[in-house]
Amino acid sequence: MMIVMRHDARPQDVERVLERVRALGFTPHLSQGHERVVIGVIGEARRADPGAFVHLPGVARVVPISRPYKLSSREFHPDNSVVQVGPAGFGGEDIVIIAGPCSVESRSQMLEIAHAVKEAGAHMLRGGAFKPRTSPYSFQGLGEEGLRYLAEAREATGLPVVTEVMAVDQVDLVAQYTDMFQIGARNMQNFALLKAVGKRQVPVLLKRGMSATLSEFLLAAEYILVAGNSQVVLCERGIRTFEPSTRNTTDINAVPVLKASTHLPVIVDPSHSTGHWAYVTPVARAAIAAGADGLIIEVHPRPEEALSDGAQSLKPERFAQLVREVRAIAELVRPRTASLVPGGNHGSAPGV
Amino acid sequence: MMIVMRHDARPQDVERVLERVRALGFTPHLSQGHERVVIGVIGEARRADPGAFVHLPGVARVVPISRPYKLSSREFHPDNSVVQVGPAGFGGEDIVIIAGPCSVESRSQMLEIAHAVKEAGAHMLRGGAFKPRTSPYSFQGLGEEGLRYLAEAREATGLPVVTEVMAVDQVDLVAQYTDMFQIGARNMQNFALLKAVGKRQVPVLLKRGMSATLSEFLLAAEYILVAGNSQVVLCERGIRTFEPSTRNTTDINAVPVLKASTHLPVIVDPSHSTGHWAYVTPVARAAIAAGADGLIIEVHPRPEEALSDGAQSLKPERFAQLVREVRAIAELVRPRTASLVPGGNHGSAPGV
Amino acid sequence: MMIVMRHDARPQDVERVLERVRALGFTPHLSQGHERVVIGVIGEARRADPGAFVHLPGVARVVPISRPYKLSSREFHPDNSVVQVGPAGFGGEDIVIIAGPCSVESRSQMLEIAHAVKEAGAHMLRGGAFKPRTSPYSFQGLGEEGLRYLAEAREATGLPVVTEVMAVDQVDLVAQYTDMFQIGARNMQNFALLKAVGKRQVPVLLKRGMSATLSEFLLAAEYILVAGNSQVVLCERGIRTFEPSTRNTTDINAVPVLKASTHLPVIVDPSHSTGHWAYVTPVARAAIAAGADGLIIEVHPRPEEALSDGAQSLKPERFAQLVREVRAIAELVRPRTASLVPGGNHGSAPGV
Amino acid sequence: MMIVMRHDARPQDVERVLERVRALGFTPHLSQGHERVVIGVIGEARRADPGAFVHLPGVARVVPISRPYKLSSREFHPDNSVVQVGPAGFGGEDIVIIAGPCSVESRSQMLEIAHAVKEAGAHMLRGGAFKPRTSPYSFQGLGEEGLRYLAEAREATGLPVVTEVMAVDQVDLVAQYTDMFQIGARNMQNFALLKAVGKRQVPVLLKRGMSATLSEFLLAAEYILVAGNSQVVLCERGIRTFEPSTRNTTDINAVPVLKASTHLPVIVDPSHSTGHWAYVTPVARAAIAAGADGLIIEVHPRPEEALSDGAQSLKPERFAQLVREVRAIAELVRPRTASLVPGGNHGSAPGV
Repeated sequence: MMIVMRHDARPQDVERVLERVRALGFTPHLSQGHERVVIGVIGEARRADPGAFVHLPGVARVVPISRPYKLSSREFHPDNSVVQVGPAGFGGEDIVIIAGPCSVESRSQMLEIAHAVKEAGAHMLRGGAFKPRTSPYSFQGLGEEGLRYLAEAREATGLPVVTEVMAVDQVDLVAQYTDMFQIGARNMQNFALLKAVGKRQVPVLLKRGMSATLSEFLLAAEYILVAGNSQVVLCERGIRTFEPSTRNTTDINAVPVLKASTHLPVIVDPSHSTGHWAYVTPVARAAIAAGADGLIIEVHPRPEEALSDGAQSLKPERFAQLVREVRAIAELVRPRTASLVPGGNHGSAPGV
Repeated sequence: MMIVMRHDARPQDVERVLERVRALGFTPHLSQGHERVVIGVIGEARRADPGAFVHLPGVARVVPISRPYKLSSREFHPDNSVVQVGPAGFGGEDIVIIAGPCSVESRSQMLEIAHAVKEAGAHMLRGGAFKPRTSPYSFQGLGEEGLRYLAEAREATGLPVVTEVMAVDQVDLVAQYTDMFQIGARNMQNFALLKAVGKRQVPVLLKRGMSATLSEFLLAAEYILVAGNSQVVLCERGIRTFEPSTRNTTDINAVPVLKASTHLPVIVDPSHSTGHWAYVTPVARAAIAAGADGLIIEVHPRPEEALSDGAQSLKPERFAQLVREVRAIAELVRPRTASLVPGGNHGSAPGV
Repeated sequence: MMIVMRHDARPQDVERVLERVRALGFTPHLSQGHERVVIGVIGEARRADPGAFVHLPGVARVVPISRPYKLSSREFHPDNSVVQVGPAGFGGEDIVIIAGPCSVESRSQMLEIAHAVKEAGAHMLRGGAFKPRTSPYSFQGLGEEGLRYLAEAREATGLPVVTEVMAVDQVDLVAQYTDMFQIGARNMQNFALLKAVGKRQVPVLLKRGMSATLSEFLLAAEYILVAGNSQVVLCERGIRTFEPSTRNTTDINAVPVLKASTHLPVIVDPSHSTGHWAYVTPVARAAIAAGADGLIIEVHPRPEEALSDGAQSLKPERFAQLVREVRAIAELVRPRTASLVPGGNHGSAPGV
Repeated sequence: MMIVMRHDARPQDVERVLERVRALGFTPHLSQGHERVVIGVIGEARRADPGAFVHLPGVARVVPISRPYKLSSREFHPDNSVVQVGPAGFGGEDIVIIAGPCSVESRSQMLEIAHAVKEAGAHMLRGGAFKPRTSPYSFQGLGEEGLRYLAEAREATGLPVVTEVMAVDQVDLVAQYTDMFQIGARNMQNFALLKAVGKRQVPVLLKRGMSATLSEFLLAAEYILVAGNSQVVLCERGIRTFEPSTRNTTDINAVPVLKASTHLPVIVDPSHSTGHWAYVTPVARAAIAAGADGLIIEVHPRPEEALSDGAQSLKPERFAQLVREVRAIAELVRPRTASLVPGGNHGSAPGV
């Protein structure tokens, strides 16, 4: 942390800041610049709070220097982590493709889609039983009944499943049926929930909040890691911007920035990040080309009848085409992804 | 809902859309425009999903017309709702000022601040016992111990209290101590939590999510109203934008837009919406001038020692000055707020 | 500027950065922290470029410390500047209210409005002759004919006028008619234009770009000041965010942040920042309550016939009511604005 | 355009709107919905202004239906346009790669880079002679001297050049030296400049404004097309969002959305859209994978000595690697891009 003094700060103002730094157990380091004094705060600065200084006379502002996250940081853990869910290894040599409906709607729907996406080349199955819906008047999911259908589809196809858990009191129930928890974008900073899944040894698919910075995203992952669960996969699912022509804006930059900042695997959800089926395939290709470790895609055999997110669901035959296209790109770029984060003697990516 | 056809849509494309509208139980209404056909969907369109149409050939896009929220809408409930918390009536003639520390830190801190803000003119007391913190390394709150200190401060001062509830399994506990639940910005779309507080007859202070549209904000309130609890107060606390000089951007427009859109009371939190004590008072004045029904302000006797949000906390004497200033403005503008939403025959505010 | 080294930077990496700092004519200042080395760059750092360092091995990132603007900075010029346009003194004791139509549409329209806004209490007259319109199919303004009508309205009422200049080759022409140049939001970074008006001794109303940070806004002003024209008034006119219910989001925080950062006067344009007449008055009150030095308001006697921006134009009688309301607020808050930027021994506002 | 009436609008309110629609030369089309009346405005609605209706009693809001742009629309011009600049055909079968320094700095620098990027596989040369810089204290470009060096580099290598024109009065001068005008992001809505280049028969590379919606971007192109110049290439260069870890956020969704909306070629600038060299190559790959028709890349042999944008410039050897990678991806995806915008009988992309 750097405390930037005002141009007109008096010697006694500087002295008082130095005292306060020391009083908090840190070591101050004074730097007399051209126009102003800057005071570095040396110590485990991750725990220091700017609020401790901004009220002092002569202080212009406080600039953080250290990264606030640590366990998720690639700087302290240079090698890729691989998160294994059955045969699928996120962050390994091959990309992992998750597919399925937005919501589990019925037993027959779930089985039909599971077989279709398996045949098309998916490695895992998705489907929501508990649905976070913006409007209370929208379909809220089948609950445990949906979880049962999902488990049945896993038995029938051998595909591991991922499904969303929305509340602490659902964690036990969902854990009985799923191979991987999904924490949705709206719950990325539901810290009680993060702590609860952090206590389980079940892999977690953590979606970025729709206005979360990448630093906040890594801190949300850090909550899970600190609690003891190191199996976290990050998912870029689009951020909220001013552009109205798509549901969200896919932050494609996030892929190389996250790969440089963290050892955790990174996947992309082009269904939510675009909001329209016609844009899903090009953005899926882009994600893999940018170095993503996988994709999560909404597929529905009759999207116009879907109870949620029909607009952004692909039909199985389009999804099969998507799988062919992204695999061809993965073959081109995967051997090269190691070079995306060049080592110390060629300069470094800044990360978050 | 309006289905806009492509310029080059064929008659059979239009026919198929009409059939689908009827199949879903709605009545289609065809409008032949200069360049294209537009098909209105007549019925309880709040329940219709654009996904049911965007996959059909010839459809260009689907435009929503109806507002998705209803119980919170002023159009269907023209008079202001007043939410009473002890002697404080949000949405009534007078503004309501809530004040207190970001976090409850100790018994003595809480009592000291409670007396100070009461003397300065606050009507209610705030203080967090369960704290949603971006980093797992930050102070996470005192939990039930904090709730007890808060309750003790209420006994000592007579000020009703509001405190955050972060998870469904905390609702019972928090309800034993508080006069009003706070749902924080990060939990605005924690739908399980909204449903849980919706089942209680305890007033709720609902903070806007940091990237929630006003429509989504009203739908979050709608979750609580639909569940049976009509005592909801809305709080604008700043939105996330590109501007880095403040912690958030106070959406001052939200005040008149919400007042036009809903009958629920609207207050502003200038501490979070600015993030720095030096900007809190001017923005508090602006909020009341814009027609807000109240304020929630962070106050700490020694902000540089606060365990959270010290940078944005006011000292008690500054807070007392703030109260004097906003009251003077309230006296000027409160009689006039009724005229902010002019009736049908003078044109109407569009609302959300 | 601070150069933050990676955790795993080698001694030779640090050495190479130190050499490069010296080679560029700056003095390096090394600070050995808990986890990493940070190197301060001492000198006229405003001219240093992060690009000179980010390619070096072991560098994590470069953090700016100095403010990039200087002539517009309050830190180096503590007293308010007053920009005088005829009898109106922006930044002085009284607020200044500019009013008039979006576009000059005809001689009679201009004269009618000029008399109406004068009677209602406006101090200056606005009206666009050259109009920046998003669509080429929209009305593009009357050009010089419009300037003549504007000048005629000035003669008739005594109100000084402000009108937009959109291109370098219009500067001479517009200067013949206007008392103040307006640089529109879309041209805030039209640097050729900024330099051109900077060479004139005519006051400039500089509108904030719709996605400009406050730092960029001050740098745009700095272009004009550096060129020799110190008569610049800043205008917050709303920024672009994700919120769709208003045309823009009024950044009310910008008022106290700018007042803390710069000595230049600051006004607000609630017509553009809201986009709907029903929200103009509450936001105008908020602007003055927050400490703004004035307002610019669109007024039209028959807004439904306006050739541009009819939706956000007030009728003269509503404008007269607005003037009464904001004056009452100004009387309350103006004596106090001095205290908004407390001096060194009570802590400081961070500014931009 | 659809005029949505309030729930409580009276019959005379509806009648007055119908009259006003007719008075403006349009045909009204009334649709009685479940909760409210909606009135369609039939005619050349692109010219209608919402302001004509929002002041009328009982009107809730006005919803645009027609797209505001026409000449650039794919709906009215289904085939791709190819913009030819020497041997490079933007929008044709092959991707086009433009490369060169941010600024022209000297004769030798320009020649060195020109040879390097040609050898690496670039098709065109970039380099700024007039530089739009956020700060007046930054290097402002060599002006005409830079244009001469650029032209000399073209002679030496045979590569056509593109360079920025910042003001109307520079158009003639720049036209003497360049093969293609660049309109920078900050000038996307400099309408005087758009009209000026629209009168020339020189191809234009139009960069998206940093907070321009795609609809506004197409309207800026429309200004050039309407003026008579149909040779416009669109360039996505990142938009401004809340995410601070990259200079801008690459809107990768914009590629398929624009390809669906317009027949004009679309390229991407990953240097500006990321702001750091370490992210340029992955995002370049993503752009081509998403269907972009080309790239513009900043290359400098010694980025740490660059006078501008050094942080985001690639060294020639890295650029050569980038070219190899994106070409391999282009070979995979180019034959398929035609299928990105499926025809009427398989559903349609919504576009802007």
